Amino acid sequence: MSIQHNDAFAAILEHERTSWSLGQVMGRLGWDQETMMPRGAAVQRSEEMAALETVLHARRTDPRLGEWLEAVEAPDAAGAAILRHVRRSYQRNTRVPADLAAEIARVTSVAQGTWAEARARDDVAHFLPTLARVIDLRRQEAAALAQGGSLYDALLSDYEPGITGDEIAAMFARMRVRLVALREKVLGAAHQPAPLRGEYGREGQLRLSRSVAEVFGYDLSKGRLDLAVHPFSSGSGADVRITTRVAETDPFNCLYSTIHETGHACYEQGIDAAYHFTPLAEGVSMGVHESQSRIYENQLGRSRAFTGWLHGQMVHEFGDLGMEAEGFYGAVNRVQPGYIRTEADEVHYNLHIMMRFDLERALIAGDLQAGDLEVAWNDRFAADFGVAVDRPSHGMLQDVHWSVGLMGYFPTYSLGNVYAGCLMKALRDAVPDLDAQLARGDLAAATGWLRAAVQRHGGLYEPRETIARACGFEPSEGPLLDYLEAKFSDLYGV
Amino acid sequence: MSIQHNDAFAAILEHERTSWSLGQVMGRLGWDQETMMPRGAAVQRSEEMAALETVLHARRTDPRLGEWLEAVEAPDAAGAAILRHVRRSYQRNTRVPADLAAEIARVTSVAQGTWAEARARDDVAHFLPTLARVIDLRRQEAAALAQGGSLYDALLSDYEPGITGDEIAAMFARMRVRLVALREKVLGAAHQPAPLRGEYGREGQLRLSRSVAEVFGYDLSKGRLDLAVHPFSSGSGADVRITTRVAETDPFNCLYSTIHETGHACYEQGIDAAYHFTPLAEGVSMGVHESQSRIYENQLGRSRAFTGWLHGQMVHEFGDLGMEAEGFYGAVNRVQPGYIRTEADEVHYNLHIMMRFDLERALIAGDLQAGDLEVAWNDRFAADFGVAVDRPSHGMLQDVHWSVGLMGYFPTYSLGNVYAGCLMKALRDAVPDLDAQLARGDLAAATGWLRAAVQRHGGLYEPRETIARACGFEPSEGPLLDYLEAKFSDLYGV
Repeated sequence: MSIQHNDAFAAILEHERTSWSLGQVMGRLGWDQETMMPRGAAVQRSEEMAALETVLHARRTDPRLGEWLEAVEAPDAAGAAILRHVRRSYQRNTRVPADLAAEIARVTSVAQGTWAEARARDDVAHFLPTLARVIDLRRQEAAALAQGGSLYDALLSDYEPGITGDEIAAMFARMRVRLVALREKVLGAAHQPAPLRGEYGREGQLRLSRSVAEVFGYDLSKGRLDLAVHPFSSGSGADVRITTRVAETDPFNCLYSTIHETGHACYEQGIDAAYHFTPLAEGVSMGVHESQSRIYENQLGRSRAFTGWLHGQMVHEFGDLGMEAEGFYGAVNRVQPGYIRTEADEVHYNLHIMMRFDLERALIAGDLQAGDLEVAWNDRFAADFGVAVDRPSHGMLQDVHWSVGLMGYFPTYSLGNVYAGCLMKALRDAVPDLDAQLARGDLAAATGWLRAAVQRHGGLYEPRETIARACGFEPSEGPLLDYLEAKFSDLYGV
Repeated sequence: MSIQHNDAFAAILEHERTSWSLGQVMGRLGWDQETMMPRGAAVQRSEEMAALETVLHARRTDPRLGEWLEAVEAPDAAGAAILRHVRRSYQRNTRVPADLAAEIARVTSVAQGTWAEARARDDVAHFLPTLARVIDLRRQEAAALAQGGSLYDALLSDYEPGITGDEIAAMFARMRVRLVALREKVLGAAHQPAPLRGEYGREGQLRLSRSVAEVFGYDLSKGRLDLAVHPFSSGSGADVRITTRVAETDPFNCLYSTIHETGHACYEQGIDAAYHFTPLAEGVSMGVHESQSRIYENQLGRSRAFTGWLHGQMVHEFGDLGMEAEGFYGAVNRVQPGYIRTEADEVHYNLHIMMRFDLERALIAGDLQAGDLEVAWNDRFAADFGVAVDRPSHGMLQDVHWSVGLMGYFPTYSLGNVYAGCLMKALRDAVPDLDAQLARGDLAAATGWLRAAVQRHGGLYEPRETIARACGFEPSEGPLLDYLEAKFSDLYGV
């Protein structure tokens, strides 16, 4: 039997090696589409990606995979982890009927365009039939996956295996109280930091971003930095590329987009090379991925120590900024209510997520209908942010996610923040003079610790276990909230 | 039966649609590798391309394709042409044993590196075992394909279906006499044109190249121009990209590389959109492809009329060139003996090809051994060019082709020149005031005629038929030689 087990394992490894490589090709097409592709090639590109997706889907549901999984035994811990990923993917993909999967792909690819039109025209009615259809299809898919369990949890587990909607809801309820209280305190403070003013040349922003990405450990010999409308990171293994964007009046947009994507990219680049070409060579979940982008961007990148160094770099690149280092720290960390999630500060960000989580859970449960979403959104926004939504593009039409069927994805952003909070607490214990290092732009110890504690493991452990092992304690929202309260009470003198 | 035929035809179309799309993806990976890919990603990229090649090979040899081809009848002329391509590909790919195909892929991918090392060190001995192995494998492949026929013709037909090595040899023998005579006359002329001197900024060269590509009809909304070490064109349909290179002391390198690749790209862009996603949406052969790149580059791009306009553009971009338009025309068309094929002028170029054709035919026939190639090369070079080869990198090590197994490819370059000669004759008949148009940089009628006469048909007709239909006469070497003799006798006053 042992030889048979080994044969099955070798067959799975070989199969996954090809699939992983083809998955990288798909990622590269996505990158090209957002950075290099001529605009006239869009229709052809969608056919090219559909062709490759057909190949990938056939590989993921290959009946031989089912037979091998029956026969196989894992040779070691890494092998067991590989089989966990393969088994999960095989089950997931064989449970959803091919017709339904194809219909979802077809509808969501059109839906994104409809959503974009609706957002541009602030026209909710234009989007509603599409949204209702996407929700219906995703509910059908969830029913096929859940096999009697929670629909929402079935979707969530694609992005964050090992956690339930109930667990997230309980955690978010605890977070919401403290975040709303912090928000009130900070916004009521007598001292409010001034924003950075002025215009900052595009070349200078990109030069500085590139250098900051390298300071954070991004290996440009196995990556590259380009421009895109929406910054993203793409690829695994030896080819992990990031993008950023430039607004001449807001250099923080370019810089912190770059640092955020650098966190994602360093996770992929940091995975043990022995795992390359296997399912372990990919960040283990969206939440853990986001923990890396957030800790790079926020806990490290927006710290007083690091912004002190960055202030010097900015002055070197652009000349006088009209503010000293402490004012610069305040400008980087200004807390302001706003409609838009992607522009939110650290205090408000999770409040944006929580309302989306509650709303999408209700949509998938069937407790909220698409037609009632706008009222529900606007009521909740007024309650949590104290402001009335002025138009749909500032409200329920602002995010692309639901149009492309990404229900169950939003909470992973906040989970990433929570995990980042835990990791920062552990990192400070591991590197006692961290601030002194950050103050001279030295990220080596911090990113080295993250690589050793989190990144190198890739998909070896389950998401929550990945963080628990790195921290030496069970993750919870406590460290993040403690960090936010301490940082912003200090900064705002409240 | 009719329904069954239709079903089989529809199944083939659907199969080819996906294969064509995946072929585009492969092309895009190749483009990325030469233009954008981080250098550290090379090993992973070769795995990604091998994975995609595995998928494509399985599709090309899919047994269902054999069954459909048994049952199918073509609905119309385009359908018949599609089936001709599919049948040829299926036969070709099923005749070569999978083991042999894999071994060729493995050996040639390493061989290119070995060749590059050997060329860099001028070390023939380093390359010989590899070359012998590649020849042996390609002979085995040719034997599987030829089924008792000529080995060389079996390889040639991959690149140029419908012509034999004997036919090419007879044509080349006729060409060689007149080309050697022309070369002697020109090199003995009292008046020799002066070269262009000076340095020309990179940005200016690229700006001008871009504008010239558009003047020649390249649609940048469905393409792009980037830099690469070796210029190439890549892709079909709505995404056809070209590359060029810049040498600051030789702006003709950048400009004429761009015009050459523009010819290839316009062929792909010019194919009837109704053929997209079928095997017809690709240039029909290497020879016909090269006819387009050559007529854009040489007959049109190096004409007195067009260089007159180009001279004005150069002066506008770079200021005084130190020569008037007529001197500029001479500088563009200087005839000089040289070792390197890719740097050869119009008079010498085909002589380079002819010796390669004779040598590779002898290698594949088994009449010449790899170990005897250097002597054979150097003897032939001395006979045709009147110069002794000074080092292997100027001799048998200069081209990549044989290292990657491209035996049977070289003659298509000269066939392209021959076809370009025929097309230019027909074009002059069709557009009587062509020179007046070229003199004002107006390529619309010329490229419009080429699009209508050649490009739009894609793979509809066989290569030779494609040219014959466009010209209204059977193609031969005569028009090319007449053109070369007239042009260079006039330019050199001989």
